[in-house]
Amino acid sequence: MTIEGLKHRIQVAAGREPADLVIRQCQVVNVFTHEIMCCDVAVADGVIAGLGSYHGKEVVEADGRYLLPGYIDSHIHIESSFLTPEEFGAHAVPHGATTVIADPHEIANVCGMEGIAYMCAAAEKTAMDIRFMAPSCVPATEWEDAGAVLDAAALRQALQMDGVHGVGEFMNAAGLLALDDSVLEKIVAADEAGTVVDGHSPGVGGKDLNAYFSMGIATDHESGSAEEVLERLRLGVYAQLRYGSACHELPKLLAAVTPENARRCLLCSDDRQAATLLERGEMDDQLRICVENGLDPITAVQMATLNAAECYGLRDRGAIAPGRRADMVLVQDLKDFKADMVWIEGRLTAKNGTYLLPVERQDPGAVASSVHVKDFSEERLKIQLKSDRVHVIDVQPGTVLTADGCAEVARDEKGFFRFDPERDVAQISVIERHHATGRMANALIRGYGIRRGAVAVSVGHDSHNLLVVGPETGDMAYAVERLMEMEGGIVLVRDGEVLDQLRLPVAGLMSDRSAEEVRDAFRRLHRCAVEELGVNAELEPILSLCFMSLPVIPTLKLTDQGLFDVLKQRFIQLEWTEA
Amino acid sequence: MTIEGLKHRIQVAAGREPADLVIRQCQVVNVFTHEIMCCDVAVADGVIAGLGSYHGKEVVEADGRYLLPGYIDSHIHIESSFLTPEEFGAHAVPHGATTVIADPHEIANVCGMEGIAYMCAAAEKTAMDIRFMAPSCVPATEWEDAGAVLDAAALRQALQMDGVHGVGEFMNAAGLLALDDSVLEKIVAADEAGTVVDGHSPGVGGKDLNAYFSMGIATDHESGSAEEVLERLRLGVYAQLRYGSACHELPKLLAAVTPENARRCLLCSDDRQAATLLERGEMDDQLRICVENGLDPITAVQMATLNAAECYGLRDRGAIAPGRRADMVLVQDLKDFKADMVWIEGRLTAKNGTYLLPVERQDPGAVASSVHVKDFSEERLKIQLKSDRVHVIDVQPGTVLTADGCAEVARDEKGFFRFDPERDVAQISVIERHHATGRMANALIRGYGIRRGAVAVSVGHDSHNLLVVGPETGDMAYAVERLMEMEGGIVLVRDGEVLDQLRLPVAGLMSDRSAEEVRDAFRRLHRCAVEELGVNAELEPILSLCFMSLPVIPTLKLTDQGLFDVLKQRFIQLEWTEA
Repeated sequence: MTIEGLKHRIQVAAGREPADLVIRQCQVVNVFTHEIMCCDVAVADGVIAGLGSYHGKEVVEADGRYLLPGYIDSHIHIESSFLTPEEFGAHAVPHGATTVIADPHEIANVCGMEGIAYMCAAAEKTAMDIRFMAPSCVPATEWEDAGAVLDAAALRQALQMDGVHGVGEFMNAAGLLALDDSVLEKIVAADEAGTVVDGHSPGVGGKDLNAYFSMGIATDHESGSAEEVLERLRLGVYAQLRYGSACHELPKLLAAVTPENARRCLLCSDDRQAATLLERGEMDDQLRICVENGLDPITAVQMATLNAAECYGLRDRGAIAPGRRADMVLVQDLKDFKADMVWIEGRLTAKNGTYLLPVERQDPGAVASSVHVKDFSEERLKIQLKSDRVHVIDVQPGTVLTADGCAEVARDEKGFFRFDPERDVAQISVIERHHATGRMANALIRGYGIRRGAVAVSVGHDSHNLLVVGPETGDMAYAVERLMEMEGGIVLVRDGEVLDQLRLPVAGLMSDRSAEEVRDAFRRLHRCAVEELGVNAELEPILSLCFMSLPVIPTLKLTDQGLFDVLKQRFIQLEWTEA
Repeated sequence: MTIEGLKHRIQVAAGREPADLVIRQCQVVNVFTHEIMCCDVAVADGVIAGLGSYHGKEVVEADGRYLLPGYIDSHIHIESSFLTPEEFGAHAVPHGATTVIADPHEIANVCGMEGIAYMCAAAEKTAMDIRFMAPSCVPATEWEDAGAVLDAAALRQALQMDGVHGVGEFMNAAGLLALDDSVLEKIVAADEAGTVVDGHSPGVGGKDLNAYFSMGIATDHESGSAEEVLERLRLGVYAQLRYGSACHELPKLLAAVTPENARRCLLCSDDRQAATLLERGEMDDQLRICVENGLDPITAVQMATLNAAECYGLRDRGAIAPGRRADMVLVQDLKDFKADMVWIEGRLTAKNGTYLLPVERQDPGAVASSVHVKDFSEERLKIQLKSDRVHVIDVQPGTVLTADGCAEVARDEKGFFRFDPERDVAQISVIERHHATGRMANALIRGYGIRRGAVAVSVGHDSHNLLVVGPETGDMAYAVERLMEMEGGIVLVRDGEVLDQLRLPVAGLMSDRSAEEVRDAFRRLHRCAVEELGVNAELEPILSLCFMSLPVIPTLKLTDQGLFDVLKQRFIQLEWTEA
């Protein structure tokens, strides 16, 4: 902000100088008064100067189309798109998403502070404004080995970084409620920094919910029902209604929204994969769903703009009003929300669904070499069992929850697990890949359907160790070695040959390719897994694997430390023992 | 915030330990969801821990009474109460006002940064939380000599002070619209500090209003009509609906408030004198007026609490919710808003209208000696005129506006003004009192009614020089000398004797006495002025004088630099000349 810039803005607003840009005769959705105003909007140096009747050097005839504030996705993990921030931005902006509140939780679990720094640097290469929330839970649990440990001191350091806006979803509700010092130190750090803390309280209710939010945590995106939304709103929590690639609660959550409480409701994605981004969009998707489900469209727009700006203290945006950033979306109607034009800071950034700026890539630098494995061998994949009766991770279509199953399996003469085509029980292994500790663990999985070859991935929430599944150790070992060579990714092998693969060179989490290429690669990988390897067609063959290591989602999960019973919060043996 | 404190809060919220305080069976006004919830409220270490069913070491039976968040007066000049901050707090808190956003504009015009520092120190002596906005316009205009000049550098310095929260009302709209560098530098300073800037745009509209608010100014409390409120709301401005001692716009402004835009409406006093404070209260007064005028009571409470907290970024208060300060008001109903009990940070601070804490006084120190006059003499009060036909300041009952009047006056043989009992034209003089510059100016005033003696005050908005009125210079000089001796105040003299006086030793603006004493003193002074000196009974004899120097309110005003025509923005001669 310079004196000369302010003078120009005043002159434009006062009608004494032509505006840099005028959007003429638009229907402005006024998120303050819940009205639609027909007027011109004048822009000076990327900031909205005035609403009224204006002349400008450049004039866009809106012809009665609607002008909305740029949308704010209030919570997303960009890594879950498998795209880099700059690529994500290039595809989100054409849909009207001009700001996202992003939690780089995944890359921080791989690369720590370097991962956050990479994301901040990459964010500079997109016109979308990405505000990062410093991850609060790295590692997510003590039951796994992530690439980094970010304690309260690291959190303080992260909160000083440019581009870091607050504290990311405070996942460790259990640790908080158990009065864990290391957890509460992070609350103190957030309080000292005076920043917003995002919440994460799935399934928490009643007095525990009061206790959790009494820590000053501001938001929650984990409500699974309208009742949970209401319970949170009543406690003063901003409710982030979610619709992403994996989680589709938004339609049913809308039952909780009233004209009186809507000011405390936001919209978010949490995760949004390349295919969803390309086919459904970003934030326009959520807006459409809101309106389809009967929400008043202006209220929906408020949830996508002003409410999020207020929640995150972004006083410079979230509305079409003098002094705010000229982040604006011109749409044909308030039903489809098709964005004809998108401006960011007054610059036309997307038109008719196309991003207009070149996508310059951030060099991943240090985060490109993230796979460090020691002492791996096929031998170590072999599972020797003391009995035929074992615990298996029961995969369930349509959810990332698993069941704790009991199965009879075949063994060879030395007691080693042997795949039986009749039983659909395969091997699964997780191999630590951050600090070459040599740590790894094996278990058994049922319902995945794989009959031959192997599938291996370097994306495994939240610690992102290597994960491999297959009926036999030969192809499994080959798949892991391939992942090590390619520094992370997704690979399908059979009979010692790669069938297909997607490199994820950025921290083993993100592709360096375009959204279209990533989408197409996933389609090919899915088809190949089903058709060539026999994977259950009812599953998402790759994505369902990515959650097999996550020890915060019930019931049985496998980390590099062993087979973990999430409900009992302890590791268990493979062999079944009657309780 | 300590780890141990957080643990206690969690334990209380989770119901594992008794709360420090439980308000049992209250009807909580939920400002997030616009509901009334019947429950207990548990407090730990001054913070609300939980809403539900709780047990506590101390229990207050609410028996169905309403529990409201402590009120936030979003804009006030405490100096205008003639009370010190600690005394003001002691009388505001019993009415439920637990936070005020205060602009120490008056004392800053007298004592500069020392004045702000005194206010911050005095604020520490009251349980009420006073958040100060650094005055943006000292002096208010270039047409007067104030005690200090606070430029952009001083503003930056003030914004670093503990207790200073943002930038006070940006009165110099004219300078801003005229692109004055020194004005715009202050906008840059505010932007760099990332703070809220309060607005002040009386009578500004249309494109100029866009230009003014395009500077990022957040609020306005000067709307005189519902239309002006709506115009501001539409531009994203928080509308502060005002009801104080001098300005009573609130009832008519409520016509602008709708369920949809109410989130952007706040309540404020601007100024509230001792009598108003004692007889009508503070914020409960505005709440009553809202409800009397048909506003939904929960909406009114939102305006008095959450909305203000959001506007000023006070995320720690404004609601009865876990993690928020236990600033709470227990009222019998949502009509009279009679506060039975008021807690601040969980401490019972007022009960049945009585403040429960001792009122410890801040030593005014440097600001106690604020009257510095040079070369004053009765001789200099004398007005020599070149003609009988003169400009007079025409006082008008019920407003601080004056008219530019033309009068015929009597003169003695040397041409000096001579009071004529038939004409109601008296002398008025303003004497610079900050830096002993010796500057002073004389003029004539009509309609004030004074027939004998003199009235002198050291409160004269906004530069607060000495102001004296009387028919003859002898008593006028005596009154000024008396003010100089007493280091500021209000004095009524007749025939060389003091009839009555009120000392204002704190910067010549505030009394060091109780609110009751100040109220009683004003009543005596008013009666004395009318009965003994003949002052027009339709006027506020003292307060109307306090605005005679204010060169931003039309039409004719007198500063120490001369007689000023506000509309023409220039000084004029006393003698009338046909234009």
